[in-house]
Amino acid sequence: MSTLSAPAVLDASKLTITHSTVQCPVPALGSPEQWAQNVCSDHMVQCQWSVSGGWETPEIVPFGNLSLSPAASCLNYATQCFEGMKAYRGFDGKVRLFRPDCNARRLSSSAQRVCLPAVDDKELVALIKALLKIDAPRWLPKEEPGRFLYIRPSLIGTGSQMGVQLPTSALLYIITVPWPDFSKESPPGSPPRTGLRLLASQGDTIRAWPGGFGHAKVGANYGTSLGAHGEAQRKGFDQVLWLFGDDGRVTEAGASNFMAVVRSRETGRTELVTAPLTDKLILDGVTRRSVLELARKGVVGEVEVVERYFTMSELEEAWEEGRVVEAFVCGTAFFITPVLSINFKGRDLDMQHGDADPAKRIASILASWLGNIQYGVIDHEWGVVVEEEEEEEEEA
Amino acid sequence: MSTLSAPAVLDASKLTITHSTVQCPVPALGSPEQWAQNVCSDHMVQCQWSVSGGWETPEIVPFGNLSLSPAASCLNYATQCFEGMKAYRGFDGKVRLFRPDCNARRLSSSAQRVCLPAVDDKELVALIKALLKIDAPRWLPKEEPGRFLYIRPSLIGTGSQMGVQLPTSALLYIITVPWPDFSKESPPGSPPRTGLRLLASQGDTIRAWPGGFGHAKVGANYGTSLGAHGEAQRKGFDQVLWLFGDDGRVTEAGASNFMAVVRSRETGRTELVTAPLTDKLILDGVTRRSVLELARKGVVGEVEVVERYFTMSELEEAWEEGRVVEAFVCGTAFFITPVLSINFKGRDLDMQHGDADPAKRIASILASWLGNIQYGVIDHEWGVVVEEEEEEEEEA
Repeated sequence: MSTLSAPAVLDASKLTITHSTVQCPVPALGSPEQWAQNVCSDHMVQCQWSVSGGWETPEIVPFGNLSLSPAASCLNYATQCFEGMKAYRGFDGKVRLFRPDCNARRLSSSAQRVCLPAVDDKELVALIKALLKIDAPRWLPKEEPGRFLYIRPSLIGTGSQMGVQLPTSALLYIITVPWPDFSKESPPGSPPRTGLRLLASQGDTIRAWPGGFGHAKVGANYGTSLGAHGEAQRKGFDQVLWLFGDDGRVTEAGASNFMAVVRSRETGRTELVTAPLTDKLILDGVTRRSVLELARKGVVGEVEVVERYFTMSELEEAWEEGRVVEAFVCGTAFFITPVLSINFKGRDLDMQHGDADPAKRIASILASWLGNIQYGVIDHEWGVVVEEEEEEEEEA
Repeated sequence: MSTLSAPAVLDASKLTITHSTVQCPVPALGSPEQWAQNVCSDHMVQCQWSVSGGWETPEIVPFGNLSLSPAASCLNYATQCFEGMKAYRGFDGKVRLFRPDCNARRLSSSAQRVCLPAVDDKELVALIKALLKIDAPRWLPKEEPGRFLYIRPSLIGTGSQMGVQLPTSALLYIITVPWPDFSKESPPGSPPRTGLRLLASQGDTIRAWPGGFGHAKVGANYGTSLGAHGEAQRKGFDQVLWLFGDDGRVTEAGASNFMAVVRSRETGRTELVTAPLTDKLILDGVTRRSVLELARKGVVGEVEVVERYFTMSELEEAWEEGRVVEAFVCGTAFFITPVLSINFKGRDLDMQHGDADPAKRIASILASWLGNIQYGVIDHEWGVVVEEEEEEEEEA
């Protein structure tokens, strides 16, 4: 049905709240329950959209299953996109988001790639804050500073037209999930994690291509990469290092951005090199962007930031000539995690040749800077404080 | 939970049936309700799978919404694949499937690409038949021979692990949807359809890539192509003709395979040309395969079948030299539909230069052959008869 009035805009100020009557146990840090990554906090945001009516009233409701038509386009045609962010319990007791405006804008950019509606970034951030206001007090206990909660805003096409058509209805929802710290912890029973061992991809599976959608955070990039990921894990590696093209350009590692620190043969200078955003092959990561901005401001010393394609052969050559300093991945899920080695054509190239003191390595300095912002050790505009409901008094 | 026993196999003989107590009205042929393509028949098949337990008991239940975790991998990571088939009410009163074994095998091939479980093809066909046994009598009325019902088997990852991991649980479901005959009818209020007007894709949007998943019927191929499709429609075209590579190789049209009939400049012979399956760029269409097999058997006379890449420039050159005979798309949704024109670099190339009598054109002859098999006019192993429940006596 079309209406004469303009479709309604998303308006977080209209939010309605239905409190949950049950409280799910919060997984202990490092527990198997936390590693399972399948427990969600007590509440979720949801908001329906239709092409004719626009956005309905957003609501916070008790966490629960979605009811979807088997014909829904999100299930058949992958009309779906999402964001990944975290809320951090600071050492000053406050909860912060990290540059939520960047994630919120990226959601609309991803949505556009699968013809879902744009989501106003300010309203989205307001909805995320409203959800955390209720759930952060219990799910990010004040007694556990340094803990975080993963936030997953999703936008899915809910229309049940079987024909391949533009989505006419959608659902925005936001859930939060306690996650382990991949950059520091290992699953129970696994050896301690000091970094990632990557397997360079073979030409028979590529993650993304020019004119495709590698830059968008759409489900279509993830399920289709599981096969290569699973095979890498069976071979004993942690992630795939995705190469592209006959020349083997280095793009991403798993679902994170990849960075190498290499001394230039020509200039002798130390360069922080990462793939460019120009042809939309890789995700415009918020952590990536932040790392590059910090490095350009000089927090890691005399390091030149270079966004350009480099090939795996080029990296191999630098390794053979002793010019590789270090490598790391960055992203919300894995934060900043050192890359221990890359397996390329059957040979393991070890990547950690930086300062003898691990804390003085570039990845470590960058992680420290970002962590200090996220956990409120230093005051920075990238750390956005979230107001919380007063915690209820514990029973005496 | 792992079990000591082997995961259970899919077993259609264990099927349980819960009949619906309500009967949804069956849309009239050509009605707006039928064009909406969002009414499903009264029942659906569903069957749960888990990596540890294998397949649970398949069941036929009243059609209804699915209950899915907001964290389900099918919603976040597009772990989803599907099939498209039809059930045909024959002119002999019987209901037939068309080569259902081909679709069933392809579902497993698609599933593999997104790490979902294989589905035994014989069991899947048995489940489809069981669903039609119940729903065909009312949804494909005997009084309306020549009518068909679209069948959508879907397989989705239902696990709610937020981490990017191999699916550990899944749901197979099968629904059926009355569909209009795209190859003959137009939506109410639209001009009669005599064929498709295609817009050759621009380099900035590419459907598939070698090493990608263009050959798989996974949701990831569909939502991501809606943008280009929508733009083509806004410009007045019906579908996108997807080109690949700097040389503009012709791959698919919309979500159908594309075929051109061209006289060879060298040999003077008439060739039926279509893109090859070799590098997995295009879907291994059941209609495509059937058309090629029929043409190779000579049903369209002296036409040489050639599976090879041809570029849009090559087709344009043939057109300029008057060597284009005709072009058509083929697939389950659009069956065999003539291509009226292709817009390439701003110029419309008209494609129909075959026999003055449209019924004698190659697309028409092929459609007639296939239709005769599907609707039981000729007896052929590709047409698989479906047993139906006795229709209840109408009230006197």
